[in-house]
Amino acid sequence: METGVPSTGNLSHDACWELLAAGIVGRLALVVDGHPEIFPVNYVLERGSIVFRTARGAKLWEAEADEPAAFEIDGYDPRQEEAWSVVAKGGLAVISSQEEKDAADALHLEPWQPGVKGHYIRLTPRALTGRRFKVNRPDLWNTRANDARRSSFE
Amino acid sequence: METGVPSTGNLSHDACWELLAAGIVGRLALVVDGHPEIFPVNYVLERGSIVFRTARGAKLWEAEADEPAAFEIDGYDPRQEEAWSVVAKGGLAVISSQEEKDAADALHLEPWQPGVKGHYIRLTPRALTGRRFKVNRPDLWNTRANDARRSSFE
Repeated sequence: METGVPSTGNLSHDACWELLAAGIVGRLALVVDGHPEIFPVNYVLERGSIVFRTARGAKLWEAEADEPAAFEIDGYDPRQEEAWSVVAKGGLAVISSQEEKDAADALHLEPWQPGVKGHYIRLTPRALTGRRFKVNRPDLWNTRANDARRSSFE
Repeated sequence: METGVPSTGNLSHDACWELLAAGIVGRLALVVDGHPEIFPVNYVLERGSIVFRTARGAKLWEAEADEPAAFEIDGYDPRQEEAWSVVAKGGLAVISSQEEKDAADALHLEPWQPGVKGHYIRLTPRALTGRRFKVNRPDLWNTRANDARRSSFE
């Protein structure tokens, strides 16, 4: 019976989903006019896919094609002195059904930037990979990482 | 005299650099064979650019061309109930000079995955943008965000 959480190395498929389920912010990477775009999104998991709302890149969302995207989350566990990351790759699809939008809203989906309604987008992962490893310099991670993430404007 | 830290909205150039200077982990987005790639990197600021080490995408780093890239950091300030993000876009260049590598090492640059020496890469931002705003649901951010980032494997 696999626990889903090896102490270090590649993460199992289940461990990746567990981490995705625990998070609220990820970063989406897209190709726009041949150039990489990256931006943070709030997301929820719904029906085995990653759902988010955004007002950005309207041209892209209007495309009928299955736009290729990569989505990333990461974190640091100070007690284990371990960093981890999960990357999901797949195609994007615009959600047009009100029922599906309501399902996402019921899971407390909020857009990264409040007040902007935008589009509801679904990323269905075709590939899901994750890594976890001991960091070399926990002193840096414990201080600077937490400073940056928790109280950058002191 | 601009403080660099408006209470909400777009961040000044100086505020973006301050946040970059305080962070240790960002995410790099690239285009590889027409598809977006995204992965976390540890980084330092050196000579006005973002420097990181990676073993990934060797083919890409060997290219002489100025590969377009986008780099992102974000965070949440629980006391202000504000989220923020910074995105830097620019070209990538491989660092071959030992002197420049030593300068990065002196700033405590470590690769995201320990033990992997890889390449030293420099991203010189041509565009730098940042946002900061009040979140709609601080309860979600305070609990789930911190759970995910600080102690995901409890």
